[in-house]
Amino acid sequence: MSAVDQQLEDIQATIESEVPPDISVTEVKYEGPELVVYTRDPKKFARNGDLIRRLASQLRKRITVRPDPAVLTRPDTAREQIMDVIPDDAGVTDLDFHEDTGEVVIEASKPGMVIGRHGSTLRDITQESGWTPEVLRTPPLESATVSNVRNFLKQERDERRDILERVGRQIHREEMSDDEWVRITTLGCCREVGRAAFLLSTPETRILIDTGDKPGSDEVPYLQVPEALGAGAATIDAVVLTHAHLDHSALIPLLFKYGYDGPIYTTEPTRDLMGLLTLDYLDVASKEGRTPPYGSEMVREAIKHTIPLEYGDVTDIAPDVKLTLHNAGHILGSAVSHFHIGDGLYNVAFSGDIHYDDTRLFNGAVNDFPRVETLVLESTYGGRNDYQTDQEDAEKQLIDVINETYERGGKILIPAFAVGRSQEIMLVLEKAMREGKIPEMPVHLDGMILEATAIHTTYPEYLRDDLRDQIFHEDANPFLADAFNQIDGGEDERMDVAEDEQSIILSTSGMVTGGPIMSWLEHIGPDPKSTMVFVGYQAQGTLGRRIQNGWDEIPISNDGGRADRLTLKVDVETVDGFSGHADRQGLMDFVETMNPRPEKVLCVHGDERSTQELSSALYHEYNIRTFAPKNLETFRLI
Amino acid sequence: MSAVDQQLEDIQATIESEVPPDISVTEVKYEGPELVVYTRDPKKFARNGDLIRRLASQLRKRITVRPDPAVLTRPDTAREQIMDVIPDDAGVTDLDFHEDTGEVVIEASKPGMVIGRHGSTLRDITQESGWTPEVLRTPPLESATVSNVRNFLKQERDERRDILERVGRQIHREEMSDDEWVRITTLGCCREVGRAAFLLSTPETRILIDTGDKPGSDEVPYLQVPEALGAGAATIDAVVLTHAHLDHSALIPLLFKYGYDGPIYTTEPTRDLMGLLTLDYLDVASKEGRTPPYGSEMVREAIKHTIPLEYGDVTDIAPDVKLTLHNAGHILGSAVSHFHIGDGLYNVAFSGDIHYDDTRLFNGAVNDFPRVETLVLESTYGGRNDYQTDQEDAEKQLIDVINETYERGGKILIPAFAVGRSQEIMLVLEKAMREGKIPEMPVHLDGMILEATAIHTTYPEYLRDDLRDQIFHEDANPFLADAFNQIDGGEDERMDVAEDEQSIILSTSGMVTGGPIMSWLEHIGPDPKSTMVFVGYQAQGTLGRRIQNGWDEIPISNDGGRADRLTLKVDVETVDGFSGHADRQGLMDFVETMNPRPEKVLCVHGDERSTQELSSALYHEYNIRTFAPKNLETFRLI
Repeated sequence: MSAVDQQLEDIQATIESEVPPDISVTEVKYEGPELVVYTRDPKKFARNGDLIRRLASQLRKRITVRPDPAVLTRPDTAREQIMDVIPDDAGVTDLDFHEDTGEVVIEASKPGMVIGRHGSTLRDITQESGWTPEVLRTPPLESATVSNVRNFLKQERDERRDILERVGRQIHREEMSDDEWVRITTLGCCREVGRAAFLLSTPETRILIDTGDKPGSDEVPYLQVPEALGAGAATIDAVVLTHAHLDHSALIPLLFKYGYDGPIYTTEPTRDLMGLLTLDYLDVASKEGRTPPYGSEMVREAIKHTIPLEYGDVTDIAPDVKLTLHNAGHILGSAVSHFHIGDGLYNVAFSGDIHYDDTRLFNGAVNDFPRVETLVLESTYGGRNDYQTDQEDAEKQLIDVINETYERGGKILIPAFAVGRSQEIMLVLEKAMREGKIPEMPVHLDGMILEATAIHTTYPEYLRDDLRDQIFHEDANPFLADAFNQIDGGEDERMDVAEDEQSIILSTSGMVTGGPIMSWLEHIGPDPKSTMVFVGYQAQGTLGRRIQNGWDEIPISNDGGRADRLTLKVDVETVDGFSGHADRQGLMDFVETMNPRPEKVLCVHGDERSTQELSSALYHEYNIRTFAPKNLETFRLI
Repeated sequence: MSAVDQQLEDIQATIESEVPPDISVTEVKYEGPELVVYTRDPKKFARNGDLIRRLASQLRKRITVRPDPAVLTRPDTAREQIMDVIPDDAGVTDLDFHEDTGEVVIEASKPGMVIGRHGSTLRDITQESGWTPEVLRTPPLESATVSNVRNFLKQERDERRDILERVGRQIHREEMSDDEWVRITTLGCCREVGRAAFLLSTPETRILIDTGDKPGSDEVPYLQVPEALGAGAATIDAVVLTHAHLDHSALIPLLFKYGYDGPIYTTEPTRDLMGLLTLDYLDVASKEGRTPPYGSEMVREAIKHTIPLEYGDVTDIAPDVKLTLHNAGHILGSAVSHFHIGDGLYNVAFSGDIHYDDTRLFNGAVNDFPRVETLVLESTYGGRNDYQTDQEDAEKQLIDVINETYERGGKILIPAFAVGRSQEIMLVLEKAMREGKIPEMPVHLDGMILEATAIHTTYPEYLRDDLRDQIFHEDANPFLADAFNQIDGGEDERMDVAEDEQSIILSTSGMVTGGPIMSWLEHIGPDPKSTMVFVGYQAQGTLGRRIQNGWDEIPISNDGGRADRLTLKVDVETVDGFSGHADRQGLMDFVETMNPRPEKVLCVHGDERSTQELSSALYHEYNIRTFAPKNLETFRLI
């Protein structure tokens, strides 16, 4: 008998001795980080409201109870029982019964009403029907991504369960080594922005944190260096994704092509956004005549292997590692990733990309942990003088630019990341228009902005408190404002918009490295009355950075494929308060107010100057051991 | 056609255009780092004394010329021709003809006379016979190791040539990467003494420097950590061995069990000593009832894969790495290993174990290099107060201890490493006895000391100048003195010696971790008139260190296998001037006088205190960036 089977047998014995004698336990097994308990008496289990919580705390595991398939009520009967329990205005749009696991997936526009206070309605559902409910939100704005991901996961349910069981056994395997050490190897994004990738390793476990590309470059993380990653992707135990931007996520699907077959831990919105952005990444590559590094089936593999975690859930991801994700304030679902290693041995937090202060969209990044000895900190704006305009001034500047442009009869073109910056700007524009600070005019959304927005509205729990409340309770969803128009008529519609009345155009890509913004450059670029406004970070080597720096002769390829040049006459402005990144002050504040203050900080994800200046400042201000690592270094933390 | 074949074809064309038209070139191929040129006109080649040197410098390769097998003189004819050329008093003991390569291996007691001034006699041999001579020294003291190694290599000649050709093609393969970086990963012997192992890596190449065990411990280098060594031993391109002590060499044969199949670069004496010491290591393990980590066939693999280098030879060992070994002054054949990476990109020197000043046996360590940016420096005696008695005082102390012990009727028991310390002490004793400073008495040698001594006398080029001259020219080989007696009668002889007249006993192991010293402890240990003298470093955790620290109750296993205790009454003395290691002053001097002074020093191979104190002192004295790495760290050098 394997060690894991022995462990499960012991756990079953413990559970049987804890539950009342009239409750049977027919099987226990692992599914990912969860322990699943099958019983012939699901209703009795549900009646003992506190039983599951007590078992979970005693076994130190996350527990799910499911009915033994043998005792399931028939779905048509169950459907009636369940619909009787759920309040009508929960807006149930779908019920999906899975007889193999006794789960019923309930999609509703108000999932909170299906859950009930402290899960009371969920328990009522089980008590009445015997089935175990799982609840999803019906997206308020239709999202092809969300529905594709959900349909795909439904369709792949059997294989997914196999994956989860395998991962679960892997997580709970016996520890093999008596050694104790913790190492971080930098595989990318050191003294540069882009291609984020870190390996966190212990004698038991190898965890890859992020695997991105580098915008405006064909450099990729150092996954091919054998003594950096080890014997290839197959030796990795777990992948953790801090957020969905391509400089963190683009090459995650590639890992599966290289033989990885393990879990990806991230938040649910990051999973969906990763699907959206990586598929678009493949699309852009093939449109530009480049061979994409992997096919869309690898994106599906990545989604199938994703185990979504909620902020604050402490989750076993290896015999010696617990992971907790916390809000990072950067984009939807972005997470500061905290690793607790060994039994009190060591704690490391990877900031991912963070925004320290609250923004319109998100609460500020969490920097409060039970323990943390080493912090790996982004440094995008870590330079001595990288202070940004505060948000209020930035909004005022943007409003001024819009009004000036409007008055001289021009249009406003804003290149923006589909994810994050666009929604922030949409909120600003909607409010300004509603309050009459800018004239009413269409706001055209091009590229994946509306789709990304739909994903935001699917996961309002991840938005800033008051915005979430607005969407939940007041039915005043600002993203549904009339002014917003999705460009879905392609080049014809763009031509019309360009010739039409004055408007604001928000288009991807955010660093002008491809996508519909290239068309808009041709339409709006030659117009001296119009304005192009940069609202996000432009990485070195990108066309966005060049335009920002004053380039006005832009190489473009016309329809015949021949190279041509475009002369920009549009006014170019930068409004820098909307970044999703903490500025120098925000980064310093993040560390200063961090609880507890870390012993070591590795300053990464910034150019050479930014990382070194931030490293030096943190050392001098707070007397912390700081480093500005290069790529391909390994730090022994303990 | 492969890139290497193309390269060889180009080289052949170059050579053909350089040699006079009457000299044919029938084939060129790589054998290890050498380029072998086959010709139908070996005699003409030999007549053009300068031709080979000119080609070597033009092609920047080491060149060996061999006769095309088609034109070879018959061996019986050649034998006469060769014996006519070589002076009689060269003492030729063997001629061995290899028709497949046209080489003749000449073993002689005075190889210098076979070589002649600047190789003139060698050229005469080729001019007369057409054969290419290779010269070996007949050991002045019979050495089973040397003769076994030579016989084995003779027997495996065909396979060895295949290995060399494969290695040669690998060394001269095309470079694949545009990246430029150099990394060192510490796999052992950091903040500890023992289990030396480092990985030096570039985008092209991975080189393992040393692979030792840790005396008094079962800890081994971190070869099993995938992201440290990479995808196992098979991904290593070359192994470099700094010297034969087991804490550097013990696990080299294990690499072959793990799939390594590449070259080991080291000196010829280190190869032979490695054979001796690793076979003994297996023997000790099985005598102590432990399962050795590999079998003796792996030692043979290691010997078969060794490519011996002489001090000062600059050798291509990878497309982007040149290796040069220099005298390290520590033990026979010990080498400071200098790596020149890329075309002027970077230079790293690994000190291995060094002795800075001259000793009786060896010249002091070389610290003069064309360039060196990073030095990896041993720190055994790097602590603030690790100053050792100078050699003259140490000799006087030893003589005093011997005389005192002799006067009170006791014996002198000296645990010593078979290799290095024993020969040093033998030289001191021989001289003191010859000069009447100590009474004449037998000096018993137990364990492999005599065998190790025989290997020393086989390679006098590696000994200190005046000792070499003594052995060469005056026929006054101190190691052949009458007082020395090898214990070859086992326990009976030991018992006799213990009961017999007064004597000095030199026995392995040097740190009292096994071997015949354990018997001597039982025989001499209870005698209060006798003295046990430590003359070498005793690592933490070894019985030697414990006895040195005052332990006098020693657990022993008697014949029945039951554990028993032995009470030591013997006088315990330490004479610390004979170490093969530079002391604190020597290490500081090594760096101070190093030419050029390195930019970075990694202090390794010393306990935590020694490495940190040496690191700190070097930084403060010479303003060098210094580090005291932990195991499993990776330093990006460029």
